[in-house]
Amino acid sequence: MLDVCLLGTGGMMPLPYRWLTSLMVRYNGHSILIDCGEGTQIALKEKGWSPNPIDMICFTHYHADHISGLPGMLLTMGNAERKEPLMLVGPRGLTRVVGALRTIAPELPFEIQCKELSEAEENFSFEELRMQAFRVNHNVVCYGYSISLDRIGRFQVDRAKELGIEMKYWSRLQKGERIETEKGLLIPEMVLGAPRKGLKLTYCTDTRPTESIVTHAAGSDLFICEGMYGEADKQEKAKEHKHMTFQEAAKLAKKAAVGQLWLTHYSPSLTRPEPFMDEVRKIFPRAYAGKDGKSMELQFEESDS
Amino acid sequence: MLDVCLLGTGGMMPLPYRWLTSLMVRYNGHSILIDCGEGTQIALKEKGWSPNPIDMICFTHYHADHISGLPGMLLTMGNAERKEPLMLVGPRGLTRVVGALRTIAPELPFEIQCKELSEAEENFSFEELRMQAFRVNHNVVCYGYSISLDRIGRFQVDRAKELGIEMKYWSRLQKGERIETEKGLLIPEMVLGAPRKGLKLTYCTDTRPTESIVTHAAGSDLFICEGMYGEADKQEKAKEHKHMTFQEAAKLAKKAAVGQLWLTHYSPSLTRPEPFMDEVRKIFPRAYAGKDGKSMELQFEESDS
Repeated sequence: MLDVCLLGTGGMMPLPYRWLTSLMVRYNGHSILIDCGEGTQIALKEKGWSPNPIDMICFTHYHADHISGLPGMLLTMGNAERKEPLMLVGPRGLTRVVGALRTIAPELPFEIQCKELSEAEENFSFEELRMQAFRVNHNVVCYGYSISLDRIGRFQVDRAKELGIEMKYWSRLQKGERIETEKGLLIPEMVLGAPRKGLKLTYCTDTRPTESIVTHAAGSDLFICEGMYGEADKQEKAKEHKHMTFQEAAKLAKKAAVGQLWLTHYSPSLTRPEPFMDEVRKIFPRAYAGKDGKSMELQFEESDS
Repeated sequence: MLDVCLLGTGGMMPLPYRWLTSLMVRYNGHSILIDCGEGTQIALKEKGWSPNPIDMICFTHYHADHISGLPGMLLTMGNAERKEPLMLVGPRGLTRVVGALRTIAPELPFEIQCKELSEAEENFSFEELRMQAFRVNHNVVCYGYSISLDRIGRFQVDRAKELGIEMKYWSRLQKGERIETEKGLLIPEMVLGAPRKGLKLTYCTDTRPTESIVTHAAGSDLFICEGMYGEADKQEKAKEHKHMTFQEAAKLAKKAAVGQLWLTHYSPSLTRPEPFMDEVRKIFPRAYAGKDGKSMELQFEESDS
């Protein structure tokens, strides 16, 4: 139901074997991109995907490795004759930064809308998805994002029969519709059980560990978190540059009781994350080293009735 | 003596198998980069080269595919602790465009100098190289560049002996030095023959064929020229978008009597340039389809004495 793909997993600079950190989330024919560094459009094309279904790009912050690919991405969208508006979301200053970068991409055949985040936490929606942006702790203002897909309760056939609701209304009620009938108003709550477990994805890079991350990642099926350094002796460097070690990310995953942890945003000096993973899994067993193109389909727990 | 490498050969957008058009020219430990699109820094790294020896970046124009990689390149230079100033050269507006792009690369540990071109032809120098920028014909102001390395005449031993010039001065005179001696001033012209053939490289992309290209490319050992389209039926499209076909580039090469022609800046629709080359070589036999990483060492005609 939610297709997730890590387009790149590098921090600081793109490398011949590693694209810059970026996430593509696909839902029901629409896509959200989180961050767009130099080369993200190439990573997307390598995956065989078009940029056209992207309706929203969320930026964590405006360090170049997270936004330098925007002008090229916009022009490639324009070359593909996009007409639909594109929503950009990011910390305060978004309009200014996008305006500056558009010096080299001034003419586009589609509208750009900017949503600037200013609160510690902001909620908005994208199709049926609930989006939460939450401020983290980097050396510039930076946000993490949670994406949730709620799931309504199961249809209670017995209850519907008991209430004498005609069968022709069942599927509409199941979809959450309120229906005026000659006999009165029918509402989904009459026939639906308690909401079932939905899907949740949380993404954050470029931050020290924070309580806000634990709070927002809590219960996520998938938690994608920066792990700039794998080496224990890089702890001080991580603090200084406001990044995290693999171990710190694993501790957050444990506290937030997430389904899986994927690490990303590796330092260019870290060529192979895998050798550090055994230690990381002692802290949080379901931890995986993200790699370019790593994908997952998040699905509801059981098949729908 | 002049190391030339086409880092990329694509136009419009970077592709998984083709970087954007960019040229690296290396001379005597210093390098000039012409154009810097999204991914050029990765192409450079793929080649095994550091950005640090780059002392000058020349821009043909400010369409994104020629400059979108600048912020990332500057930051990567900064991360490599560059201290030396970097000279940027390009059409009028350079300071404004670079300033805008530096919104996402504001802090650098080195100075950036901008040289804006405004005349139809401008001459400047880089180390011992003579540089010529010449305006071409695109839908925005665009320049081509010629890079020349002159070569002084051969040392005339007989003439030196005839003039009674002591042997200890010979090598300094041969290097072009003027020397004050007790017996008077010695100048290189006393002992050097006529200047010998030097090296010349001419580069132009994003333009219709022009007389200025023929004039400036004349006698170049290597002429690197855009060939956006190989197909004969793209002639009208080339005119409309102010680009060239392979055939038009070959005609320029023939008129300018260059040593070799390399084509570059292919349309994303042109996946394989090679099938068109037989036709192109009927116009100009020493024509080659450029490809990413294509390199050449331009050398003086015979070994130095």
